[in-house]
Formats: sequence, C-alpha cells, structure tokens
Amino acid sequence: MMSKTASSSIQATSSDGAPKPKKSVALSRHIAGTTSLCTVGKHGNDLQYRGYEIDEMADTAEFEEVAHLLIHGWLPNAAELASYQEKLRALRGLPNAVKEALERIPAAAHPMDVLRTGTSVLGCVIPEDKAHGVAAARDVADRLIASLGSILLYWHHYAAHGRRIEVETDDASIGGHFLHLLHGKPPEEAWVRGMHTSLILYAEHEFNASTFAGRVIISTGSDMYSAISGAIGALRGPKHGGANEASFEIQRRYKTADEAEADILRRIEAKEVIIGFGHPVYTVGDPRSKIVKELAQQLTESGRGLRQFEVARRIESVLWEKRRLFPNLDWFSAVAYHAMNIPTVFFTPIFAISRTTGWAAHAIEQRSDNKLIRPSAQYVGPDAQKFVPIEQRA
Amino acid sequence: MMSKTASSSIQATSSDGAPKPKKSVALSRHIAGTTSLCTVGKHGNDLQYRGYEIDEMADTAEFEEVAHLLIHGWLPNAAELASYQEKLRALRGLPNAVKEALERIPAAAHPMDVLRTGTSVLGCVIPEDKAHGVAAARDVADRLIASLGSILLYWHHYAAHGRRIEVETDDASIGGHFLHLLHGKPPEEAWVRGMHTSLILYAEHEFNASTFAGRVIISTGSDMYSAISGAIGALRGPKHGGANEASFEIQRRYKTADEAEADILRRIEAKEVIIGFGHPVYTVGDPRSKIVKELAQQLTESGRGLRQFEVARRIESVLWEKRRLFPNLDWFSAVAYHAMNIPTVFFTPIFAISRTTGWAAHAIEQRSDNKLIRPSAQYVGPDAQKFVPIEQRA
Repeated sequence: MMSKTASSSIQATSSDGAPKPKKSVALSRHIAGTTSLCTVGKHGNDLQYRGYEIDEMADTAEFEEVAHLLIHGWLPNAAELASYQEKLRALRGLPNAVKEALERIPAAAHPMDVLRTGTSVLGCVIPEDKAHGVAAARDVADRLIASLGSILLYWHHYAAHGRRIEVETDDASIGGHFLHLLHGKPPEEAWVRGMHTSLILYAEHEFNASTFAGRVIISTGSDMYSAISGAIGALRGPKHGGANEASFEIQRRYKTADEAEADILRRIEAKEVIIGFGHPVYTVGDPRSKIVKELAQQLTESGRGLRQFEVARRIESVLWEKRRLFPNLDWFSAVAYHAMNIPTVFFTPIFAISRTTGWAAHAIEQRSDNKLIRPSAQYVGPDAQKFVPIEQRA
Repeated sequence: MMSKTASSSIQATSSDGAPKPKKSVALSRHIAGTTSLCTVGKHGNDLQYRGYEIDEMADTAEFEEVAHLLIHGWLPNAAELASYQEKLRALRGLPNAVKEALERIPAAAHPMDVLRTGTSVLGCVIPEDKAHGVAAARDVADRLIASLGSILLYWHHYAAHGRRIEVETDDASIGGHFLHLLHGKPPEEAWVRGMHTSLILYAEHEFNASTFAGRVIISTGSDMYSAISGAIGALRGPKHGGANEASFEIQRRYKTADEAEADILRRIEAKEVIIGFGHPVYTVGDPRSKIVKELAQQLTESGRGLRQFEVARRIESVLWEKRRLFPNLDWFSAVAYHAMNIPTVFFTPIFAISRTTGWAAHAIEQRSDNKLIRPSAQYVGPDAQKFVPIEQRA
C-alpha cells in the first residue's frame, strides 16, 4: 500500500542549519502552546517523557510505570506501582449498557470506530465528574487505559463469533490483558514484555495530530471523554496511527527480501511514497525505531514472522541507501505485532490504548493552561457576492 | 452562572490599529491554513459564507439553502433546493442498530454526549465510503444534518418516557423536523422561520475551536464521522457552544430588568465575567447579534419569554455602558430558543446540527488541502532526568 503522504518527504534544513517547516505539514514547527510532558529531538534525535529518555525505559520498565509518569506525574516506586496496577485491574470491567451498545456494532466496523464509540458511550454512562477536578480527569484516563482493550475485544468476539467474553482477567499488565482477551489464554512472558516495550514507545509524542486534536477539544472547557474520543478519530488516519497497519500491508507483499528489494527499487524510481518511513518532526532517524527493531528481531527469532522481519530490514536498507529515508516507529512495530499473532486491524487500536496516556496528560495540561485554541484562516475564496433571493435565482 | 472565560475579555488593539492576539486564546490571529468558506470581520464587523453576507440571508433564506451553499458549494435554485430537501427528508431515519445503541444511554446523559455517540455509532453502521471521494463525504454531511435531530430526540423520548418515537416526519425543513419531534406536533410557521434564521446564523464561523478540531482530525486522512464527532466534543465546552446554555442560566436568575441591572452592576464591580458577551475574534460587535435579537423580540412578543427578553436587553445595555462589552450570538439565541419552548439542554445540540454544515465543508476542504496539521510545543518541563530502575527507586 503506497500512497502520497507527508510521511516520507525528505526534510530540508534552512541556511542556519535548523530544520525548516515541512510544506506538507500545517503549523509545522510553529509553537502552539507549552508542555511539560515531552521533548522530541531536544538533544539530536532523542525522545524524553517528562525528562526521561525513552531508550532508558523502553526495554526494562513496565508500561504502567510510564502511564503513571504521564498521567499522575512521577515514576512510581514498587509499592505505588503495585497499587496502581491493582486500580487498573479493577477498572477492566464494562457497564452492561456499554456491552449492549457494543453488541449493536457490526462485525465489518473499523476497530478504531469501535474504540471511538466505546469511549463515547462510556462518557455517557460514567461521565467525568468535573466537580472533582484533576483527580476525576485522571480517573477517566485510568479507566480508559484499563478498559479500551475490553471494549475492543468484547466487541470483536461478539461480532465475529457471537461470544460474550469475560473481560475481567487477573493479568498483571494492560498488554497482558489485551493478549489474553485476544487469544483466549494467558500470554507467554516474552510477549507480555514485548507489549510493555511497544506500549511505552507509543505512549507520548508531544503535539502530534491526535494529541493536538484532543487539546483543541478540551480547550473549550469540554470533558476528557470528548478529548480522547476525538483523538482516537484523529489517530485512525493513515498519515498517523494507521501507518503501522499500512506498513504491514507493504511487508506482506513480498515472499523474500530479494523480491522486496527489486520491487522497492522500482517504486523509488516511480517516486512512490513508502508508508512507515520518515517523520513530520524527526529529520535523521526515529529514536524509537532501533528499540522496536530489536524487539521485532527477538520476537521473530523465536516465533512467527522471521521472513517478514528480513523483508522489513531489507526495505530499510534500500530506502536508506537510495533516499536517506529512515524507518519510523510504525515500520518494525508491524513486524513485532505480527510476531505476537495480533491481527493487522488491531495495530492502530494498540497504539490508541498506549497513546491514551499521553492524550490524557496533555488534556489535563491544556485544561490547566485555561486557553482556548482558536487560530485564524487565510481567506482564498470568492469576493463579496450579491445575494439573490431564491425566487430570482437562475 | 459566571465564570472565568475568554469570552468577555476586552480586546486591545496594537499601535498600528490592527487587533492584537488575545492572551486567553492560543494561536490567536495566527494563520493555520486557508479557507474559501468564510470571512469573519473582513470589512469591519461582518460575516460572509462563501462571499455572501450573513445579514442578507438570515431573515429570508431557508437553512437548507445555506447548508447546500456550504456543503455542496453554491446557493441552489428553487428546483435544486426542492430536490435537496427531498434528499434530506429521506435521510431522517435511523438504522435499528443506532436506535438500539441510543436506548442504552441513560436519561442523565449530557445531550451533546448523545450526539457525539450517535454520530460515532452511525459511522460504524453506515461508514463513509472513501472510495467515492468527495461525493461520499457530502453524503455523510447530508445524512448527519438530516438525522442528528432524530438521534437526539429518539434518545430523549426513550430515556425520559420509554417511548420509541417515529423520527421520519414529512416536515419540509430541518428546523421544523426538530421542533416536531421535540413537541410531538407540527410546529407553527413563525417558529419554523425562527429555526431557519437561527440555524443560518450558527452554520459557519471560520477556524473556531470545534471546526479546527475537525480539521486536525481529518488532516490525518481520517473519516468524516471522526471529524464531526470530535467537533461535537469540542463544541460541548462552556467556552464554545455551551455558552448559549450558560446565557440562559444568567437570564433566568432575574424576575425583572431592574433586578438584573442591580445585580450585574455588582458583578461588574467584582470583575466577574459574563458569558454571552465578547468574542475571541470580533472586537466591536457580533454581526449576528442584532439579527437574533430581532428574532427574539418577534418570538417573545407573540409568546413566552417577554420578561426574559427585557432582562437580556437590560443586561446588554449595562454591559455596553459600563464595559463596552457587546452580546455575541449566544446571548439572544437563548431568549429565542426559550420562546420556542426548547429546553435549555438542547440549545447546544441545535448549534451542533447547524454547525455540522460548516464542519463538513471544512473537513472536505482540509482533505483536499492534503496537509497534516502538526504544530510544535515549547517545552517548559523538567531537565533531563536520570532513570532509576524500579528496584532502586525510593
């Protein structure tokens, strides 16, 4: 699947060496607000969450530590983490009204539409208690990261097989819960660890489009569910979260790395754009890519998808050599998810579950900023037109 | 209901006479894109939709003419309007799956959450057919403006009284359909005309927060339902669409205009902010206000709400005299809606039905621009922090 997107346009630099705004991106490099949550490329090509380097956390921390860091403000100690995981476990259940609404959604629906809808229904059934300020906002965030997997997989099993699954498992982690519900059995340890790493890598990324959509929504004084369901709708697009699914579709086209190389060379010649490469902000590489590439290698060595990993790696080499394009997080994430036997249509929903931590943290921050986000437009339409009443209109 | 918002901050001008960005508004007066749909204050304090002055259309045109102008690109002639109204009438019905999902939403839910959810469910059941490009996008827009009233009022009657109403009426207009479903009988002519005017006034307003949220969402390549459900979530906030409901709550506090004057003077002294006055873009007056004020006067002279109109008018005088604050569209809209016996909680949903025309037109425009909206942030958080593994964390 190749299409024209912003994702792999080559980044130019201005005469003073600073990256130039990208023409394919509106508001590119324009400051739209302040944040304490994230720096992208502050010291070269790095990524920090509240000052912590992503590559120090991704391989060893649990996703719930990072969720706590983003939503609640600090890295928990062991006792705090245990108590937080207990809270999240208790929030996995779904109200009957939500389950019944999910049962009405057809099997052909887009899983991201299901997540958007489930979030919206949950906001009707257990609304945010705005009288309780930031604590209530954090409760909504915790409920959503704990139960988005329940929403998606309750719908999935019901729509596909008419089965009403039990969504409250005793898995220790959000990633483990997801895999357990998906496959109907407790997941193996290596996959649980893989989910921790993947969820940490996807958790937060400054003013990306979905996060910014959520900030615009909450800037009007709206609620957390509105912000996050809006952000889910934004993440759905192929120029954003949808890119990991599109990456998989590219990789699966080829039986061997050699076949991939020949075809990609042809597509480079035809100036096609390859999804999964380049980035609207990073200019020389995506710091998350090397981490997820290692994860993909580990997972495929011991299981399925080794051929896909070889194909993905070869395409990476070709694009770097020929066009100096680097893979972004989505490229090898597709390999890792496939290795864990996750269907392609659930790749973006996993991104959504993870990014809900970042969305929620940004929504809380935007609310405390107390600014409406309301830009202006350059008018390029017709000059003043004379209104003619309909009786006299040709 | 008074609270600190951006809505009535006094607008400063810079030394060259141009309006200065407002501190309470992020990206204030910053160009975030181009549009052919709307100018706000291009020739002083006016408002144009695709070049047509709002005050030439608002009193005489039907809302469906303006919906056609915004969604389909031109003011229809009589035959085109008749055919468009026929199309919209045929789109009033709701799929059973949507009705059944709406029946799961509790009576205590916020009506805007119901609209957001209904839109999202509809997007699961009758998704946008992206293979059909802009025609399919316009179909989604038409379906939504035709059926958002059905969604809201089907839920309302079911949740409040357990009644499953018939949503497919033969009313000629969207406003008439809404009043018919709400009151359970065909509306009187003056009210149908009142709805046309009100819906026209609320239809479009450049890069306001909800429209901009929708544009950010669709800029990722996402679908119309995601953009519009996100926009509904943004409109919900009290600094945006929620202001007409807040205006009513202020007006209903007072039994007489004299009582209102005395209390408002006291609140001005205490530097309280009055919702319904001032605007993030307009600086000397809201061109829509005089139109809706006349409408409110006509509707209250022949029906209910005359006292409320007098109260609203007195508060307008006091705030202008003491603080040079002008009423925005929301202030007298609250009077007009009350005169038509519309419950307060439905004020913002009516705004949403109307603005769906503008949201859809902007989403279609943003999609054809083919730019991702992705700004940057100024980092104000902690410096680089050393990650300590959880076993060693205090």
